[in-house]
Amino acid sequence: MDFKNKSIISLRDLTKEEVEFILQKSDEVKSDKHPDALKDKVMASLFFEPSTRTRLSFESAMISLGGKVFGFATQDSSSVSKGETLKDTIKMVTGYCDVIIMRHPLEGASRAAQEVSSVPIINCGDGSNQHPTQALLDLFTIKDKFKKIDGLNIGLYGDLRYGRTVHSLSMALSHYKVNLYFISPKILQMPDHYKLYLNQCGLKYFEAESLEEVADKLDVIYVTRIQKERFADPEEFVKVAGSYKITLNTLGMLKKSAKIMHPLPRVNEIDTSVDNTEHAIYFEQAHNGIPVRQALLGLVTGGIR
Amino acid sequence: MDFKNKSIISLRDLTKEEVEFILQKSDEVKSDKHPDALKDKVMASLFFEPSTRTRLSFESAMISLGGKVFGFATQDSSSVSKGETLKDTIKMVTGYCDVIIMRHPLEGASRAAQEVSSVPIINCGDGSNQHPTQALLDLFTIKDKFKKIDGLNIGLYGDLRYGRTVHSLSMALSHYKVNLYFISPKILQMPDHYKLYLNQCGLKYFEAESLEEVADKLDVIYVTRIQKERFADPEEFVKVAGSYKITLNTLGMLKKSAKIMHPLPRVNEIDTSVDNTEHAIYFEQAHNGIPVRQALLGLVTGGIR
Amino acid sequence: MDFKNKSIISLRDLTKEEVEFILQKSDEVKSDKHPDALKDKVMASLFFEPSTRTRLSFESAMISLGGKVFGFATQDSSSVSKGETLKDTIKMVTGYCDVIIMRHPLEGASRAAQEVSSVPIINCGDGSNQHPTQALLDLFTIKDKFKKIDGLNIGLYGDLRYGRTVHSLSMALSHYKVNLYFISPKILQMPDHYKLYLNQCGLKYFEAESLEEVADKLDVIYVTRIQKERFADPEEFVKVAGSYKITLNTLGMLKKSAKIMHPLPRVNEIDTSVDNTEHAIYFEQAHNGIPVRQALLGLVTGGIR
Repeated sequence: MDFKNKSIISLRDLTKEEVEFILQKSDEVKSDKHPDALKDKVMASLFFEPSTRTRLSFESAMISLGGKVFGFATQDSSSVSKGETLKDTIKMVTGYCDVIIMRHPLEGASRAAQEVSSVPIINCGDGSNQHPTQALLDLFTIKDKFKKIDGLNIGLYGDLRYGRTVHSLSMALSHYKVNLYFISPKILQMPDHYKLYLNQCGLKYFEAESLEEVADKLDVIYVTRIQKERFADPEEFVKVAGSYKITLNTLGMLKKSAKIMHPLPRVNEIDTSVDNTEHAIYFEQAHNGIPVRQALLGLVTGGIR
Repeated sequence: MDFKNKSIISLRDLTKEEVEFILQKSDEVKSDKHPDALKDKVMASLFFEPSTRTRLSFESAMISLGGKVFGFATQDSSSVSKGETLKDTIKMVTGYCDVIIMRHPLEGASRAAQEVSSVPIINCGDGSNQHPTQALLDLFTIKDKFKKIDGLNIGLYGDLRYGRTVHSLSMALSHYKVNLYFISPKILQMPDHYKLYLNQCGLKYFEAESLEEVADKLDVIYVTRIQKERFADPEEFVKVAGSYKITLNTLGMLKKSAKIMHPLPRVNEIDTSVDNTEHAIYFEQAHNGIPVRQALLGLVTGGIR
Repeated sequence: MDFKNKSIISLRDLTKEEVEFILQKSDEVKSDKHPDALKDKVMASLFFEPSTRTRLSFESAMISLGGKVFGFATQDSSSVSKGETLKDTIKMVTGYCDVIIMRHPLEGASRAAQEVSSVPIINCGDGSNQHPTQALLDLFTIKDKFKKIDGLNIGLYGDLRYGRTVHSLSMALSHYKVNLYFISPKILQMPDHYKLYLNQCGLKYFEAESLEEVADKLDVIYVTRIQKERFADPEEFVKVAGSYKITLNTLGMLKKSAKIMHPLPRVNEIDTSVDNTEHAIYFEQAHNGIPVRQALLGLVTGGIR
């Protein structure tokens, strides 16, 4: 399977075989370091919107493989403010590097970049649209923990409407025989076009408004943050956010083997008292960003095959 | 010719032989990569004023040769705001690196830095004064395309008063037997001291207010952006900027072999429909920043001879 | 002596033997470069508060030893603004690197980070509390110049109340038989708990309000900046700051062999006319940040033993 020069824009572009291949390569990279695999490769890291986790883990992934990094972490440390279009910025940068990773506030920005780029683009989040590398590391973490994906009951919990991580993860899971549980307040339900897509893939999903309804079935609870700015009425936010929280009390409802995931950053939707229980795997999940991103960088630049 | 420890502050400091030597070394670097030429060298990248193109291409140039980079991309990510003078900042950084590249909003800042630095300084733009590495890559691009510089008719178009790239390029071209055409609105004409300098060098230049007057003579049209903030009257800006634009229609006036250059970023002074014509070489020009800056970094640090 | 995986949070945690060992290693690193000592090590550089000197010298120190760096230079280029706690940020980053250097506006932040980190933390300043690597490079500079520390008369001059560098330096000096002179305006005197600590260590200190009183005794005058924001009354600031200045006139009061130090940045508390005298060693002091930080990075990551 040849990923060389392939861009990673949306999970929708990847076949099941390709997803599985990436997971397998990530596993190889995790157990067997390749300190010089990307020795002569240069990565441009273009963050038109700030990020900690994604940017830092990508940069760490690249340099740990001997690769080199340049770029910008915020739009105002670039001259984008002079009015240059995204396409012009990409056409320029494409001459300076072997791979571009980018985050942008607008949906579709990575796709537009790919159209004019002569090097592969990896989408690190475009608006509330997609965040494919997050979905791949989520999938990797599930497989690493359960040694399988098929047959699992996976709950997505919190803001399913605007959360790009749950959108990308649903796409990724559409390749597997899983049961999905969408647990969210009414106004933050999974958008219809994702549900339609899952239907077409023959995937079963169930919707619920409270965790209690489905808690004892779940193998995985994937928690996302509910953001204040999604609510017109601040009191409504306080009420909703207050009831979408994982605490030590919640754990009693869960299977003993159930695992709690979170894309991070976490504010208070998971109480820190949960961190040291066997259910919590969100920091391990974050750390899996390294092997998965190393595998991706290696595959698209040709440094890993 | 020994460039080791030489600062690159202004084109005016370089003899024709030195310019030609840099162009020749750039050509060698472009065709024959030196992946480890700067292996043990460290570059400080000090941008007191933000930049995308110059900073990113310099950093990419350095790391591609095995060199290492640290620095800051905006003044507020440094403690310059605590009131430290530029000279003190340079005296400190000079102990941490083998070469300093810097951009600063004030004219003459790089020269002041050079006075106290024990390592070579490369000026990446000081106010509306000079931007020598841009001029060198412009020259490199012209020579690369036409296989000569002498004898060409070169038009500088747009804002010739405040545009530091056209100032540096004029200086660079003063070493050659070219005809210069300055095409600009009256209030944005080339400053008198540059014209005086060109006179002293025996260079012929012609001034025009519209491209039509000279279009059929030009081998190169070097376009620069006209900035709103240069006009007291916003309506005057709209009128002027509207007439200083390159579109598909403009191309009909040009020689078939004429090439359009631009230091980028471009806003709308060149219509994107022009990008795919044979006249457009501005992205190639931007990409030439890599070999030219690699050659310069190599020469001044002693990594390339 | 094994420093591997040891965090450097406060001078108070280091025994005299450990301090001496670090100084000795710094000396070795200074005279004998180790270009590949940290070849496979990755450093996270987390500046929740901007810095030039400390960040740049640490990054230069790391890359000069072949190590790799990622991180952020300002809080707003990270997603810390999304409300993530420091501990969560550290728990994440700890999976991406071999060592973390951090500066934070709050006292005790580095200690809190250390509690949850699986890699060593080096404190680069936490509020007005501690800045241990600065103290170590100060100590290194004194020893390098005088070939001893015991027996010296060391004056700390300026803002002794809020200046974290003088706090850390006092701690460091508490291991030696020195006489300390605290010279400051009344409202900026050394805090009582530091004086109490020095008493317990059996160290002698003297307090003065003007340099004249003690100038002829001093071997070292360590100058710090007096900041306007410490004064309720701006006129009071002008009066005080005006009298706490080192000029060419001051030098006449000093021993011929006395050395003037400053953690930098300097604003106008030392006149630039002093820079070229034999008394001035503050830029050399800044440059010593490289070997001392190289030694520390090497020791805590195990790359240097």
